[in-house]
Amino acid sequence: MQSSKRETKRHLWPSVAPPLLTIDGIGTRPPGCWKMLTVAVCMAFLACLQAQELQGHVSIILLGATGDLAKKYLWQGLFQLYLDEVGKGYSFSFHGAALTSTKQGQELIAKVLESLSCPEDMEPGRCAELKGQFQRLSQYRHLKTNEDYMALSKDIEAQLQHEGLQEAGRIFYFSVPPFAYADIARSINSSCRPGPGAWLRVVLEKPFGHDYVSAQQLATELGSFFQEEEMYRVDHYLGKQAVAQILPFRDQNRKALDGLWNRHHVERVEIIMKETVDAEGRTSFYEEYGVIRDVLQNHLTEVLTLVAMELPYNISSSTAVLQHKLQAFQALRGLQKGSAVLGQYQAYSTQVRREQQKPDSFYSLTPTFAGILVHVDNLRWEGVPFILMSGKALDERVGYIRILFRNQAYCVQNEKRWVVDQSQCLPRQIIFYIGHGELGSPAVLVSRNLFRPSLPSKSWKEVEGRPGLHLFGRPISDYYAYSPVREQDAYSVLISHIFHGRKDSFITTENLLASWVFWTPLLDSLAQEVPRLYPGGAENGYLLDFELSGAQLRFCQQQLEQLVPGPGSAPMPSNFQVLTAKYRESPLISAWPEELISKLADDIEATAVRAVRRFGEFHLALSGGSSPVPLLEQLATGHFGFPWAQTHLWLVDERCVPLWDPESNFQGLQAHLLRYIRVPYYNIHPMPVHLHQRLCAEEDQGAQMYASEISALVANSSFDLVLLGMGTDGHTASLFPQSPTGLDGTQPVVLTRSPYKPHQRMSLSLPLINRARKVAVLVMGRVKREITMLVSRAGHEPKKWPISGVLPSSGQLVWYMDYEAFLG
Amino acid sequence: MQSSKRETKRHLWPSVAPPLLTIDGIGTRPPGCWKMLTVAVCMAFLACLQAQELQGHVSIILLGATGDLAKKYLWQGLFQLYLDEVGKGYSFSFHGAALTSTKQGQELIAKVLESLSCPEDMEPGRCAELKGQFQRLSQYRHLKTNEDYMALSKDIEAQLQHEGLQEAGRIFYFSVPPFAYADIARSINSSCRPGPGAWLRVVLEKPFGHDYVSAQQLATELGSFFQEEEMYRVDHYLGKQAVAQILPFRDQNRKALDGLWNRHHVERVEIIMKETVDAEGRTSFYEEYGVIRDVLQNHLTEVLTLVAMELPYNISSSTAVLQHKLQAFQALRGLQKGSAVLGQYQAYSTQVRREQQKPDSFYSLTPTFAGILVHVDNLRWEGVPFILMSGKALDERVGYIRILFRNQAYCVQNEKRWVVDQSQCLPRQIIFYIGHGELGSPAVLVSRNLFRPSLPSKSWKEVEGRPGLHLFGRPISDYYAYSPVREQDAYSVLISHIFHGRKDSFITTENLLASWVFWTPLLDSLAQEVPRLYPGGAENGYLLDFELSGAQLRFCQQQLEQLVPGPGSAPMPSNFQVLTAKYRESPLISAWPEELISKLADDIEATAVRAVRRFGEFHLALSGGSSPVPLLEQLATGHFGFPWAQTHLWLVDERCVPLWDPESNFQGLQAHLLRYIRVPYYNIHPMPVHLHQRLCAEEDQGAQMYASEISALVANSSFDLVLLGMGTDGHTASLFPQSPTGLDGTQPVVLTRSPYKPHQRMSLSLPLINRARKVAVLVMGRVKREITMLVSRAGHEPKKWPISGVLPSSGQLVWYMDYEAFLG
Repeated sequence: MQSSKRETKRHLWPSVAPPLLTIDGIGTRPPGCWKMLTVAVCMAFLACLQAQELQGHVSIILLGATGDLAKKYLWQGLFQLYLDEVGKGYSFSFHGAALTSTKQGQELIAKVLESLSCPEDMEPGRCAELKGQFQRLSQYRHLKTNEDYMALSKDIEAQLQHEGLQEAGRIFYFSVPPFAYADIARSINSSCRPGPGAWLRVVLEKPFGHDYVSAQQLATELGSFFQEEEMYRVDHYLGKQAVAQILPFRDQNRKALDGLWNRHHVERVEIIMKETVDAEGRTSFYEEYGVIRDVLQNHLTEVLTLVAMELPYNISSSTAVLQHKLQAFQALRGLQKGSAVLGQYQAYSTQVRREQQKPDSFYSLTPTFAGILVHVDNLRWEGVPFILMSGKALDERVGYIRILFRNQAYCVQNEKRWVVDQSQCLPRQIIFYIGHGELGSPAVLVSRNLFRPSLPSKSWKEVEGRPGLHLFGRPISDYYAYSPVREQDAYSVLISHIFHGRKDSFITTENLLASWVFWTPLLDSLAQEVPRLYPGGAENGYLLDFELSGAQLRFCQQQLEQLVPGPGSAPMPSNFQVLTAKYRESPLISAWPEELISKLADDIEATAVRAVRRFGEFHLALSGGSSPVPLLEQLATGHFGFPWAQTHLWLVDERCVPLWDPESNFQGLQAHLLRYIRVPYYNIHPMPVHLHQRLCAEEDQGAQMYASEISALVANSSFDLVLLGMGTDGHTASLFPQSPTGLDGTQPVVLTRSPYKPHQRMSLSLPLINRARKVAVLVMGRVKREITMLVSRAGHEPKKWPISGVLPSSGQLVWYMDYEAFLG
Repeated sequence: MQSSKRETKRHLWPSVAPPLLTIDGIGTRPPGCWKMLTVAVCMAFLACLQAQELQGHVSIILLGATGDLAKKYLWQGLFQLYLDEVGKGYSFSFHGAALTSTKQGQELIAKVLESLSCPEDMEPGRCAELKGQFQRLSQYRHLKTNEDYMALSKDIEAQLQHEGLQEAGRIFYFSVPPFAYADIARSINSSCRPGPGAWLRVVLEKPFGHDYVSAQQLATELGSFFQEEEMYRVDHYLGKQAVAQILPFRDQNRKALDGLWNRHHVERVEIIMKETVDAEGRTSFYEEYGVIRDVLQNHLTEVLTLVAMELPYNISSSTAVLQHKLQAFQALRGLQKGSAVLGQYQAYSTQVRREQQKPDSFYSLTPTFAGILVHVDNLRWEGVPFILMSGKALDERVGYIRILFRNQAYCVQNEKRWVVDQSQCLPRQIIFYIGHGELGSPAVLVSRNLFRPSLPSKSWKEVEGRPGLHLFGRPISDYYAYSPVREQDAYSVLISHIFHGRKDSFITTENLLASWVFWTPLLDSLAQEVPRLYPGGAENGYLLDFELSGAQLRFCQQQLEQLVPGPGSAPMPSNFQVLTAKYRESPLISAWPEELISKLADDIEATAVRAVRRFGEFHLALSGGSSPVPLLEQLATGHFGFPWAQTHLWLVDERCVPLWDPESNFQGLQAHLLRYIRVPYYNIHPMPVHLHQRLCAEEDQGAQMYASEISALVANSSFDLVLLGMGTDGHTASLFPQSPTGLDGTQPVVLTRSPYKPHQRMSLSLPLINRARKVAVLVMGRVKREITMLVSRAGHEPKKWPISGVLPSSGQLVWYMDYEAFLG
């Protein structure tokens, strides 16, 4: 009773406030009655205030207050905040700002405020009363120039002074296009910061850039105006109740999940947002962004990190959560073109043409559907596919995160005898159901044969019987199913978090940039990719179903015809041809890059299998550089029969840097091959360029040491296969033109100098290379065209073109060149 | 027509043959009619024979001809052979041999022969005629002494001579207990081998030993009498039509299976043989063998290798098949106690007591049910669980091999719209259905959303509609389902293979021993294990369901009470206590071995996580020896959060052998830790005991090199954790009593000598060890009891007890001892 009294009595100032109201909106009775209060009551109230401490005044400035987002969600969210916070010690003023003229803006805002709805669980009379107060506390304001911001600040200060209020802080909510960010930010920083001791919070809405560079620019710019802790980047998915429940769920069910939340138990994770609407009316935005930037880079990635991250000890520490999130980002395996399948609903290009006055010949390549395969390369998740998918014009609107567990059990009895709750052989899954779909509300579902989850009983309740409803292959009765006691809009949740300074529901700069670091290479590589066209809705049939194929994704149904004659329409794989010919009188194999790599990988495996069969082991010497990267990855992930356990890996050449240096050839081997396979440690032979903590010191005799290791382990010092490249200057291994060592002579391994940094190198010599049973030279890319031509005409001139000295004395030499290197 | 004539006319000798008939049983008319044949016809017939080449005579001697197996399967198999081969150029005689008296034996055999059944697809009259011939060609013979065998051989020779027949070969089918093998084999070898140019085939029935040693003894013994190619060890599972189809199926569907038959696509493999019968009446045999020896070591293991092996290019080359099978055996991960769950049907012990006159206090530990988890550690199968299961008194009789594929697809549309043939998201599996069960016949099933398989249309046909039948979670209509055109008994199939010399359906000595090498350690470790009791039949409920738990198996339902107070009934894990105390004034942690290892692994992980959080890296120095093996494996497979990528692994000591030597401590690290985890290559620091192809040569300065590596990478040369052991002589690391080096002085790493082989060692010195932040000493086993006591009373006497010199100067020392080491 006391506190309700207190609320009643603090309502002193409404009638005396100037038009730009700064008002503590606390009260349960109509303001009129205050005039009847006696001084005694007033004194009692003030004493009470002092005891309780008035928390101060908060000004909330909604920029873009007349825009769609504001109208649809933000005003409602602010109203909800007011309803939640009224009477808890703060006073509020709400400033709807925009570029519209004051009169027009006032009218617009008045309309929006009128349409605010009351929560279902609130007594209507009480709500109407508070709505009236909220309307009075809210004001439209034209805000454009720096002077406007100065004026706003002055008005707020004047108001505070007039009311004798302490300022608690100011919230600026940017619901404006990103190009406007910088000017507004500058004005706020220079002219509208709150007074000393009060906080500033600026709330930013996506898009936060278009790729890593633009995101970084924007972040740097904002960083010059605001402190990191002042910025609240909204990803409204983090306000969705089911998403917001992920970490608490993991935390509260630690005991049950501890043994389950890993690669040994999780079969896959699906993070899905399906829409039925299309992009009509929004194509000018959409055409620039597409589904990956619009949904995957932000919403689905945030969810991904919440699921994948190591669980901090204390999940309410936003620092710990951020740190663990960033670690999760670091563990993400880089995406490649093959990690994605893209689609575009058929009407999209027409819509773009119409809305943006494009010619009939225009076809958009913007994807409206994407499926992405993400791998998290750490011990917990290694090998578990995380499938991210979103699309417009699909058959249903639904969003969910589904963690499907592997069936770890063998059920001895005939399946007829299995019963839902008890059989460990029926599907086991945990689903965070974001909303819509057949269930129609947010939910958390846990298979009954898994465990009974613990959820906060104040905010989540068990779903009441929905007989006949099937979700994810099982009747709803197979799940422990919970939904929120009170459904809350994501923006209401987030606005409340902003008000309470809960930063863990927002995207920090580090987090944002980490996400762009992850997505940008994929976006770049997909820029010219032609998406598969789909009709939209239920008619999509199986057209968009996709599947894992090795480390890649592909549509299940092969596309029979190229539907869009877009710029990226490359020949289909079946059109690729492998060309065999002669080059420098040795066999030449030429093809498109993928085919070439595939052929070379097959040849290497065949050579390895033959060698192991014959000699029990296979000695492979590999070059560094970028060309072999896809080759190594193909060998690592696509060749199950490769006899790695019997393979010895040698280096053709090495840069004189520590093995763990990113420049080291060995580091390339580690990153693209060794991490995937299991070669016994002692079969791996890095060059000893770093002995006694020195780099390639002559006196350490590293080259001699490597030579004697070769001579001890490789019969006759004849490698079974040496893989070489060819530089644009005709160098091969680390044997550069005019090299005083390695081109001839008796030293099997030599120290050399490169014209490129790092200059010091160690390299196999030509005489040693030429002892090999087989030498393969891989040459790829247009940049090699010229040297390919020059060398084709050269004789045996190793001083000039070291590559021309490669001629195995009794082994075989094969050239592998892609069409660009060979045909230009 | 011509061939049928030939058949008719070759039937010359029945009437003139001696009682022990050696007869070419070819003919369609009753023998009586031969007397009417003219010489001219006879001449024509002989000419015909010469043109066609008579293949010779085959004598088949069935040893144990009156036994159960013979009565149930073998005579029928021989009859089937006769039916199949009659008229194809061979003549036959069948000798049923046993120890029974001649008269009694003859009666028994007559009865068996009378009961032989004709194939369904054979015209009854024709079959009756052939059955009559077969009966006349078959004879009982008492065979016991060497003289009996000599007499048999002479009789055969006489018969051959009398008939003017070439001998093709002799088949001895051992359907006798294994203890009788040696005498019989000796007699055959010395007195009953066929004449020159003719082959000998001896057919052996399991059991082929009781474990590796006995199997090897038996094999050696048999090997002294027979050539490997003369021996046909029967595993009748290889004659089951569905099993026999595995390799041909893999071969004929290579194209479809090529990308599927690997860890990326296969979720699990189940190899199952369920029986409803129990062991009643057979307990004298069963009690000695149990389900693992009876079913898993042979039948299910054979199937396992057929599924897991790399597919030879030519599957009809039995050499290639054998070689690939042996490779598959080599890839099998060793089984541990935890790889098995065992059960025993409740009535079993009572049956044993009754049948073997055991006292009421007798409880058997023989398992009648076993589930086993097998891992095939190669690139193809790594991580795929192979589940082998067999049991008596289960709810149904059925055998199958089920290859369940992972769902690799994401199906974009709502599941309501999925259709069987098309959706890649419905289960995909291949089943070799051995027989019985709900289907009731052998079959090969392939999910329709997988591919349409190719099967030999002569012998396999599509299963006709069986509406309503569900198998493995799907209606039968979801499968391409094939069953044999003609069902054949396994023994008929195998007898035909023996006759045709097809060795690929039999178990070679190498194969047999490889299987025992695999199973024996498990059998040994399970010898005292108490099986879970189960009631039998459908009442078993979920009691026997088991699940994978890390690398182990366990029953899904925790056992609430110990049902059998058997000798092996150890305390339950929950009864284990970890005891903490002091030892040599440092903390002591003591527990049962499993708990101790688990605690130490947890402590190491916690230390690692703390170190990485604080310093970004974790430096761990590990000792060799056998005690750390379970620790390493637990760390490798049970600790997902272990920061391996930031961990540096160092050796505490090393033997002066190459790193790949089985004696090398590093090799232990490779086998039990490195193979499972992914530590970057350059974080692994083996001791340089093998420089310049020499072992621990002073002048190579390996110890100095290691010291400088430590000093360069480990801050302050203080390891975060050093794991030590303690020898029975009080040594630790490779610092032995009275060692002139390493116990004090300034050298961080030293060469030492061990009293044990190999004598030369490299070791961290005590001063370096004592710089560590933490030192853990792991001491396990009763053998350590004495030294534990001695050292507990010793002062600081490193010369006498090197372990007593372990006292980190500013770090922490913790002793981990199991109860046996600590309490004796």
